[in-house]
Amino acid sequence: MEAKDTRHNVLKLVRLGIDARNEYMVFMRKDCPVCISEGFEALNRIKVTKGEKTIVASLIVWDDESQLSHDQLGLSDAAIEALETKEGDLLRLSHLDALDSMSDVRKKIYGHRLNQAEFDRIIGDIVNRNLSNIQLSAFLASSTGNSLNQDEVIALTRSMINVGFKLDWGKDKVYDKHCIGGLPGNRTTPLVVSIVAAAGLTIPKTSSRAITSPAGTADTMEVVTNVNLTTGQMKNVVEQEGGCLAWGGSVQLSPADDILIRVEKALDIDSEGQMIASVLSKKAAAGSTDVVIDIPVGATAKVRSQEAAVHLSEKMVAVGKAIGLNIDIVLTDGSQPVGRGIGPALEAKDVLSVLRNENNAPDDLRERAIILAGRLLEMGGKAAEGSGTLEALRVLKSGAAYKKFTAICEAQGFFREPEVAPHKHRIRSAASGVVSEIDNRRLAKVAKLAGAPGAMTAGILLLTPLGTHVEENDTLFEIHAESQGELEYALSYLDAQKQIIKIKAT
Amino acid sequence: MEAKDTRHNVLKLVRLGIDARNEYMVFMRKDCPVCISEGFEALNRIKVTKGEKTIVASLIVWDDESQLSHDQLGLSDAAIEALETKEGDLLRLSHLDALDSMSDVRKKIYGHRLNQAEFDRIIGDIVNRNLSNIQLSAFLASSTGNSLNQDEVIALTRSMINVGFKLDWGKDKVYDKHCIGGLPGNRTTPLVVSIVAAAGLTIPKTSSRAITSPAGTADTMEVVTNVNLTTGQMKNVVEQEGGCLAWGGSVQLSPADDILIRVEKALDIDSEGQMIASVLSKKAAAGSTDVVIDIPVGATAKVRSQEAAVHLSEKMVAVGKAIGLNIDIVLTDGSQPVGRGIGPALEAKDVLSVLRNENNAPDDLRERAIILAGRLLEMGGKAAEGSGTLEALRVLKSGAAYKKFTAICEAQGFFREPEVAPHKHRIRSAASGVVSEIDNRRLAKVAKLAGAPGAMTAGILLLTPLGTHVEENDTLFEIHAESQGELEYALSYLDAQKQIIKIKAT
Repeated sequence: MEAKDTRHNVLKLVRLGIDARNEYMVFMRKDCPVCISEGFEALNRIKVTKGEKTIVASLIVWDDESQLSHDQLGLSDAAIEALETKEGDLLRLSHLDALDSMSDVRKKIYGHRLNQAEFDRIIGDIVNRNLSNIQLSAFLASSTGNSLNQDEVIALTRSMINVGFKLDWGKDKVYDKHCIGGLPGNRTTPLVVSIVAAAGLTIPKTSSRAITSPAGTADTMEVVTNVNLTTGQMKNVVEQEGGCLAWGGSVQLSPADDILIRVEKALDIDSEGQMIASVLSKKAAAGSTDVVIDIPVGATAKVRSQEAAVHLSEKMVAVGKAIGLNIDIVLTDGSQPVGRGIGPALEAKDVLSVLRNENNAPDDLRERAIILAGRLLEMGGKAAEGSGTLEALRVLKSGAAYKKFTAICEAQGFFREPEVAPHKHRIRSAASGVVSEIDNRRLAKVAKLAGAPGAMTAGILLLTPLGTHVEENDTLFEIHAESQGELEYALSYLDAQKQIIKIKAT
Repeated sequence: MEAKDTRHNVLKLVRLGIDARNEYMVFMRKDCPVCISEGFEALNRIKVTKGEKTIVASLIVWDDESQLSHDQLGLSDAAIEALETKEGDLLRLSHLDALDSMSDVRKKIYGHRLNQAEFDRIIGDIVNRNLSNIQLSAFLASSTGNSLNQDEVIALTRSMINVGFKLDWGKDKVYDKHCIGGLPGNRTTPLVVSIVAAAGLTIPKTSSRAITSPAGTADTMEVVTNVNLTTGQMKNVVEQEGGCLAWGGSVQLSPADDILIRVEKALDIDSEGQMIASVLSKKAAAGSTDVVIDIPVGATAKVRSQEAAVHLSEKMVAVGKAIGLNIDIVLTDGSQPVGRGIGPALEAKDVLSVLRNENNAPDDLRERAIILAGRLLEMGGKAAEGSGTLEALRVLKSGAAYKKFTAICEAQGFFREPEVAPHKHRIRSAASGVVSEIDNRRLAKVAKLAGAPGAMTAGILLLTPLGTHVEENDTLFEIHAESQGELEYALSYLDAQKQIIKIKAT
């Protein structure tokens, strides 16, 4: 650190109301005394200090004199929040010294192995937002593919656990499930939790909301109950019912992962090592001990071949063991969407019809759920090895799982039935034949344009899974929307598309 | 490309006056119709279209209602310029489709080899600004260290040449020089050009301005002549004098490199492959055929060991050969600064005193210049192998080099003597002994705080190189400044520093 005269390095905060997601940005005039004396230039990384708090922000230079005066600066909203500062405060600005963690990142870029202390430094600086997106990207690119060995994935996972909160349920055994790379409609979680908790195991499940999909598990659960629980409330629900189905966003289980995932999306890369660290650090932080992991395998799924799935499974089990997690892997069919509904309320309806053992409940959803729940029952000694699926089916058929589901909902606040959208539109087949192809990505986009997940009842009801025989004019799917405008927006997109569902003449 | 209803995707431009360097940014209100209907979120990459022109920009979301109305958007200055748009224009916004070049980048991230077509796609998208800094960073991180083999470096170099302008001097042989990783004061270029041109070879030299240093060659030349030449003007000067000493910034010889270098700096990485491609693509684009490359080797230089220098030399020669460049490498001493002056005018004075064969001219600067010029004379058949240095010295001593230098300056517009700064301050030794250490980095910072390179005559005059015997109170260096305020700013920084020049008692 250089001691330095800092009289020239102070500017007064003006609130600009700028949302740059989690990115810290600082706005200054090109001709302000700090920029001139410090030689700051656009996109430099600048330390901004108020009292004891310091953040690192990227500089945006403002030429327009009407926005800021010479002695003022602006900050993006996230930066204001992190500094706990307010309009009119005097903030000190200085150059960022070289970060030790960037030496570690460079070491990785040059292909060397990193140890625990080095991962700790990198993850620590990520959580403190000292690394810019450019630097995060270099770290991710250098640790993708096969560039992290097993020891490194273990060290990375430990680093990620150490910087987050940890939940403690006061139980020896805590069960959990996870799915790698979601399939549309694959809403097994509420079913698995209901079956496993009904059988007497502890399964406190937190789920995410949709980021780019038409519904996440938390969105689906919000249709029927309250999912915004504090950790104290979750603990009470789990104490009483053995399980919960809450939104995980209020608990920062793996804050480093939340930041890295944003950049991974921008690069559209899936780093195996990062992914294992991401999933397992969250499970460990959530206080789980025994986890079943669903890996859908299919040509358009995240994991594309049986071989890759086996490789991934072995790594996950090994890393889990090193950090004290007992992992069991289930490889499932990842070739087509699961269930019928796409969108929060429509997916909740699928879940309820399985729980209620209704005749027209989607078989594929039920089957996946009992296989996953079965494995957990075997892990927890509630079923003999090889008989877990049958035992899970028995719990489901007995009505105990449905009873447990509604009890969990009540414990979280209330249980209510899903509503039905006021606006519907049927898309019919132009020919007769067999459904030979479904474009899941575009189907999901139609659901989102119709309002999902923001509008709970909006989405798609798919009536014809792959292999269904259809006659000309049969309904292929329905679009559900909460307003006529949204329905029209979805339809105008649909009009411009090629066939989303392909029919092969028989 | 998806055809799509675009009625909802139009907003009106407001000029915000935001300088984010070369980065394109688009500002929208969170609740504007486009953000809602398209599901845009902060930091998304958005296509902004006006007529035939389209750019890709990063989205900043503005919450403050006083800045933008619902039907307005803002753009950073570089984006406005690229779109050739103006306040009030209607701009169309849409999601960016997946870029093919990012598939290529991912291929490299996963450790595979890239071919010419793949590098062409990546470099093409870089030049068109379709890649964000996050994406550029991943490309750089994945192609650093030894991850590019020779074929890939050749392909990358070709791609970089293809996207820039090319200069044609109408000569079979065009000579050039380059220095890898500058040393402070290493202003050999004006000397080498003068000697080589005086000997009858063609050497049209373009140089850069300082980016982070107290002076670049273009800044130094600007002290004595006009350096802002069009390519037409350069051609006339070279036609007449055989050489020029112009600023290269007005000619975009390697636009991809200009963009990549910014990100490399943020990561503080030196990728050997990228560096070779950067240097050689610029030389090829500048129309050079025979290039001597100065690689200073030293503990604090860019290249730290003789071994690394030899390795780099071999690669450069091989890549040069593949793209039709004849390369000769000179390894030089990189352990201490060269000459006495630091700052444009003070360095120009060093250059002139060598050209004028003055008694007190800096020996080290002269020596380096005649070695480099000598190699070029040998390459050009103006000296027998092994006698180039002597021939260069002869040309220098004869006064022909000085005559050529002033003639080039006159041809570029005028020749004038460097001025001397009105404010000086002597820093004296606190003890007697031998100069044992010079902190070049901090010395350069003092020069910059004193006003260099913006204030031409500002900088440092170093009187005591390594090994000089000094008595107590002898002057170690002088600070030169154009205003009392800048002098005081440099001094207040100096006061807070530990000794910049260390004296060891004898």
